[in-house]
Amino acid sequence: MLDEKGILFVLSGPSGVGKGTVRKDLFKQSNDLAYSISMTTREKRLGEAEGIDYFYKTNDEFEQLIADGELLEYARFVNNYYGTPRRYVEDTLRSGKDVFLEIEVQGAVQVKENFPEGVFIFLFPPSLEELKNRIVERGTESQDAVLNRLKEAENEIDMMDVYDYVVVNDDVNTAVSKIQSIIQSEHCKRERIARQYKQILKEES
Amino acid sequence: MLDEKGILFVLSGPSGVGKGTVRKDLFKQSNDLAYSISMTTREKRLGEAEGIDYFYKTNDEFEQLIADGELLEYARFVNNYYGTPRRYVEDTLRSGKDVFLEIEVQGAVQVKENFPEGVFIFLFPPSLEELKNRIVERGTESQDAVLNRLKEAENEIDMMDVYDYVVVNDDVNTAVSKIQSIIQSEHCKRERIARQYKQILKEES
Repeated sequence: MLDEKGILFVLSGPSGVGKGTVRKDLFKQSNDLAYSISMTTREKRLGEAEGIDYFYKTNDEFEQLIADGELLEYARFVNNYYGTPRRYVEDTLRSGKDVFLEIEVQGAVQVKENFPEGVFIFLFPPSLEELKNRIVERGTESQDAVLNRLKEAENEIDMMDVYDYVVVNDDVNTAVSKIQSIIQSEHCKRERIARQYKQILKEES
Repeated sequence: MLDEKGILFVLSGPSGVGKGTVRKDLFKQSNDLAYSISMTTREKRLGEAEGIDYFYKTNDEFEQLIADGELLEYARFVNNYYGTPRRYVEDTLRSGKDVFLEIEVQGAVQVKENFPEGVFIFLFPPSLEELKNRIVERGTESQDAVLNRLKEAENEIDMMDVYDYVVVNDDVNTAVSKIQSIIQSEHCKRERIARQYKQILKEES
């Protein structure tokens, strides 16, 4: 019947920006979001469970999945693969639930290539905000320090380019509330709603 | 310095959908929104004030403003002009405040042509939602009645096309909360934020 599919939200940003804290707080407040479960070749640790902490695969299985295009992104750390299984994400979306993925910048770029219909949120360090303030209160920093900051800022801004939204993480509660607004408003996007209604009409006429 | 301009939000929808109620409730809860003040040629009534209820103009003045492209939209009712002054909207946005405009569908189409950078929200009657339910519980309505509803629904969906968002007004509080989310998330759009930061960098380097 009605194609009310979930939406994939991808949260990323420079390391150290506080992605994990924001994600945990968001999940405490939102119980209709599914967290994307990763796949890995590392051994299951005590207390971990298949399909809850990770999907556990052998090295051969994982490489086959890569070859079959079954991973939205993957990376290798300390001789083990970690990745995001496409099938789990797509099945969850099809069931009508939104999926939330918190991931490093390199992984987010891969997800963007493999799943461009996702909604990409960049968690931004407050450094540019600080930069703005410092430029306003001139003279508190040497010119070299300001130039360095401008360089860093340029790099951070270049990283924004694949994202739909930018949320400055100057305060965790504010950042979480902005992400909740993004989730709610994305469900009100005209293209999504018009597509759903057009589908009902087509099926009935 | 930083170009933190406000955003123009335009709320519209079929007549009778409850735009006025939603707008009033929204303004009760949001005090950093400016309501767009209309311009009119009708006479000032007792208790009304220039620049609060309306900007009052003579017929000649109004027609000159139309000729000069100074109205984002206008219409004539009962021998009087009513319209949205571009200058007032632009000055308010430049001061960093969002402007909220609640308007009939014909006016919204004109605003879209004259100010495409606005964010257009369509308040949608719950009839399509009801239609969906009726199709699910088949047999509760004659086939003719269902066909009529499908026709109506098609017209309503066609009206959506110029809008960015669709909010179903099945409950005023939910509709207001969705509009607040849209306002907050639009301020997080990457294009807006990147544009601001790039401007700081350009000015400083």
